[in-house]
Formats: sequence, C-alpha cells, structure tokens
Amino acid sequence: MKLQDELKKRADAFNKYWLKYLQEGKPATLYDAARHLPVGGGKRLRPFLVMLSCESVFGDAEKTLPFGAALELMHNFTLVHDDIMDKSNLRRNVPTVHIKFGEPAAILAGDLLFARSFEVMHDLSVDCQVFKRLNYDIIRCILDICEGQQLDMDFEQRKIITEEKYIDMITRKTAVLFRLAAKGGAIIGDGSKDEVSALTDYGLYLGLSFQIWDDYLDISSNEETLGKDIGNDIRNGKKTLIAVYSLQHATGENKQVLDEVFGNGNASDDDVKRVFTLFKEMGSIDYAKKTAIEYNKKAKNALDVLKDSEAKGILKELADYSIKREK
Amino acid sequence: MKLQDELKKRADAFNKYWLKYLQEGKPATLYDAARHLPVGGGKRLRPFLVMLSCESVFGDAEKTLPFGAALELMHNFTLVHDDIMDKSNLRRNVPTVHIKFGEPAAILAGDLLFARSFEVMHDLSVDCQVFKRLNYDIIRCILDICEGQQLDMDFEQRKIITEEKYIDMITRKTAVLFRLAAKGGAIIGDGSKDEVSALTDYGLYLGLSFQIWDDYLDISSNEETLGKDIGNDIRNGKKTLIAVYSLQHATGENKQVLDEVFGNGNASDDDVKRVFTLFKEMGSIDYAKKTAIEYNKKAKNALDVLKDSEAKGILKELADYSIKREK
Repeated sequence: MKLQDELKKRADAFNKYWLKYLQEGKPATLYDAARHLPVGGGKRLRPFLVMLSCESVFGDAEKTLPFGAALELMHNFTLVHDDIMDKSNLRRNVPTVHIKFGEPAAILAGDLLFARSFEVMHDLSVDCQVFKRLNYDIIRCILDICEGQQLDMDFEQRKIITEEKYIDMITRKTAVLFRLAAKGGAIIGDGSKDEVSALTDYGLYLGLSFQIWDDYLDISSNEETLGKDIGNDIRNGKKTLIAVYSLQHATGENKQVLDEVFGNGNASDDDVKRVFTLFKEMGSIDYAKKTAIEYNKKAKNALDVLKDSEAKGILKELADYSIKREK
Repeated sequence: MKLQDELKKRADAFNKYWLKYLQEGKPATLYDAARHLPVGGGKRLRPFLVMLSCESVFGDAEKTLPFGAALELMHNFTLVHDDIMDKSNLRRNVPTVHIKFGEPAAILAGDLLFARSFEVMHDLSVDCQVFKRLNYDIIRCILDICEGQQLDMDFEQRKIITEEKYIDMITRKTAVLFRLAAKGGAIIGDGSKDEVSALTDYGLYLGLSFQIWDDYLDISSNEETLGKDIGNDIRNGKKTLIAVYSLQHATGENKQVLDEVFGNGNASDDDVKRVFTLFKEMGSIDYAKKTAIEYNKKAKNALDVLKDSEAKGILKELADYSIKREK
C-alpha cells in the first residue's frame, strides 16, 4: 500500500472521530468561524503521525484519536490566529477565517479551538497520571509555538539571523508539534522509555525537514514565475533558511544587493529577481535542500531502535515524503 | 477587619504566588505584552473568592493558589483579546495591550496567558481525579466565555433582546467565572456535595449581581457628565439590562425615540441625552438596581447551608459590596 493510501485510510477514521467536536452551534457566527478551517480540509499529518507512532510500538491506534484531535485542533487554532497576525487572505485557496467572518470572530474562534483541544483530551482512555503528563506536554508545546511565532515576526525586523537561531525558531513554531505527536502516540501505545525517546527524536527531525523543505519548495517551485509570495517574502525580510544562509555568507557586491533589497518594502520586481538569482548562485537554495535531507536522514536513523513493523516502514516513507513532496 | 483589608491580605499572598508565572522572558515583546495587564493591577476578586470559598468549608486557602491563578490568568487572557475585539484603547487608565504592543503581540500574549492558566494547574496538590475534574470545568468555562463574548457582540446588531437572553449572555460572559471560582474553592477545600452546590450558586448570583451593578454604575455615575462611554454604548446599541428593559417596555413616542437613536452611530449628543432621560423616566435604571439587589439576596441566601465561620461572614460582605461599590 502506498503512503497516500495509508494516510487517507487513517485520515478518514480520524475525520469521522473529531467531527463531533466541530458541530454547528450557537452563536452561529462563532461556531461557523471555528469550523471553517478544520472542516475545510487538511492532510491530518499530525494525527496520522500520532497513530503510526502508537502502532510502531504495537499499540492500538484507535486509542490515540482524542490525542490526535487535540493536536489537530491546536494546529488549527494557531493557523487561525497566525493568519490574522500575518494578514493572510487565503489558506488552502479559500478565504482565511478573519477575512470571511471578521477579526473579532476569528480571534474568538481560535480561542474556542484552543479550549476544544483540551476538552477532547477528556475522551482519552489512559491512566490519570498519563493524562496529566500529556496535558502538561501540550501546554509546553503551545508556549513554544507562541514563542516561535513571535520570533518569526521579530526576525523580519532584523538584518542577520544565525542558522542556529533560525533552527530554534522553526523548532518552536513547527517541529515541537510533530515531536509531541510522535512522542504522545508512543506513550499512549505504552512504548518503552527508549522507544518513546526514539520517536520523540523522529518527530522533531521530521518537523524540521518538513519546514525546511517548505522553505525550499516555496522558492524553487516559483522559479519560473517568481510568484507574488516570494516577492513579498523578500520585501518583508522573511527569514527562511535560504535567506539566513545568504545573509550570513554574502560578501562584496552580493552583500550590497542584499543590504539594499532584502527587507526593503519598496524593492522593484527587478530587485527581487536579482536577490533570487543571488540566492541561486550562492548555493543557498541547494543548501536548504541539503539540510532538509540531512534532517530526513536523522529522522530515519532515530527509528533504528524500534522493532520492525509495517508502521515503522510507513514512518520511513513519511520521512522521505517530507523531502519529496512538491506542494 | 473590613472587607477591603481581608481582600488586600489575600491579594498580597496571591500576587506573591502567581508572579512566578509572569516573569520576564524571551522573546521580550511576547513576554512584556503578556505581563502588561496582569502585573499592572486588578483587585484579584476571583482568587479572593476561591480562597474564601475554600475557607468557608474549613479548607486550607493556601492550597487554592494555583487554581486562583489559573482563573485570574484566564480572566486576563479574555480581557486582552476582548480589548482587541472591542477596539478599547484604555483599561485601568493605561493603554491596552494591543495599543501598547501592537495587535499581533496582543493576540499571542492572550494565547500565552491562556496556556499559562492550564500550566499553573499543575502546581495544584490534589488527587489526580480532582485535577481532571477542575481541568474540565475550566475548559467548559472558557467555552462559555467565548460564547458570551460573541453573544454580546451579536446583540449590538439586534433591535430587541429579551431579559432572559441578556441574563444568559452575562451568565456566560461574566458569571460562570465567579461560579467556578466559588465551586473550585469548595472542591479543593474538600467541601460536602451540599456545600459545593451552595457555593456554586453563590458564585453565579454574585457574578450576576456584579455585572448588573456594573451596568447600573456605568450609567448612573455618569449622570452629571454623561460621559463618552455612555454615548458610545447608546450609539453602538450595547445591550445592558437598562437598555434591554427600555427596549422591551417602550411604547408610543418612547419607542420611536429608541428606534431612531439607540444603535444609531450618527446620533447627536442631544439624541443621546433624550435616550438617557427616557431610561430614567421609564424606571429602567431603577429596575437594573433592583435586579442586582435581588441577585445579591439570592447569593447571600445560598450561603445558609454553610456552618458559620469568619469566611462565611466575609462572603456575605462581598455580596453586599457587589451592590454598594461605586466604581
């Protein structure tokens, strides 16, 4: 069976489960706004990861559904609030929540999804101490995500960011949630200490490889057209790994171009093209690709501790998918 | 000892405790924004209520500090987000979080305080099942508050709101948090089922009497000056109990004035004055005062179940304070 089929099979089971937490309700504006993004779609990668991680320690994946739902609700809550902060008008090709329902309803809808992610955890059939441990892990994860989002915004205002700080930022903003998904699945599946630790590492590296591959895809898939988003990212001074690498290594004329154009809201289309060419010529795009592949390898290596199983095989495929996908 | 002294004594103990959850941190923008409102002041009424409720069932008030902190953090998170939604520039005479730190940081700061309110619960020394029960109650309370805030915003767009719907709205928006404070204190203090139930009722009625007295104060304390806020509330069609009563009972010319002016953003100062006079002449302001006093009595009656104690006396004083305070 192909990865996509495995994903679909589990996403279907998951969607059936979590929809009871996304029913219509009153006041309608609030509930419609809260349902808009989660009901609209999404690959359900995080619940998928929770299930597979549980299966890979020979646990019952069905038992993880509430935990997967908690993480997916949390992921959606952060997307709703991030879209307001980032002034994004579209997500998955449809209007974002604040565009469709207004900002007040979007702020509240995010808060509601946040609360729901804690609520769904009460459906989990685990020992009370395990409940408490996972509850605490979720809280720490949200605090990390808040810090990561603030760092991402702060970095736009700064000239130079070290690669270390960039990795720290995406760890908080993106990878901690993958890490918790893999860790939580292993805990619910009653994995050994070593297994939980291995899957925790796997989740972290998978998250990093996903995020860096996103940076790479955003820019390389737009090479022909050099779309609006790339132009905006360059004008806003968005610190992707590609930008971070270029800013750190540029000298002479290259440095001058970056100083003038990168983060300059008034840069012309020609300027943007010059920066893009520079990214390519300096090898920054290749560097990001290489880095994503390195994290992909680390993710797969972390799995060595586990006994062989179908789930372990799928986890390896998932890691490879993170650096093969084209959207 | 006077109520204010009792309040201050407990607020001091509380402030010392919860400040460890409000330390400076990095990224500084996020942590400074999150600290701004909670560190800036506040009467700490909710933790006070938690402590007194615990004491009134002869429990150890110190044990309630994490729960009081959870509710106070939650209260502050809702204020930060509400101020963005309501476009409020000032709170407690200082700039609101989004005015001082910008909206993105304010949204995130609210999210951070939200997460912290769950985090601090892990400091609570109670049986794991009690932890779970309180955790669930907090979640339901947040869902109620989200619904209440949306209803409050929705009501501004509607001509007539029944008194029942108004009471339902302020129950969710304000009173549920008082109710949970009193209930949780009694649970942590190991009160009997009857005691927990009595204090739950007390908290609810206290919250209602506080909120309605607020409506009354806002308008009666501005009688001389007829401040800007009252004008805005009338122009925005804000549904206080005074407005609800007037809109429901007005006939003939009074009805016509309300139809024309109430909720009309372009109403003149003279129009606003006419509505204010109408509120007074129809007895709506007196009606709100009378209703607050009724809830105050219900709150005090609920306490009859409890054995006599110093705390019970203070809870009665607190109920009376809710309808005597002048700000």
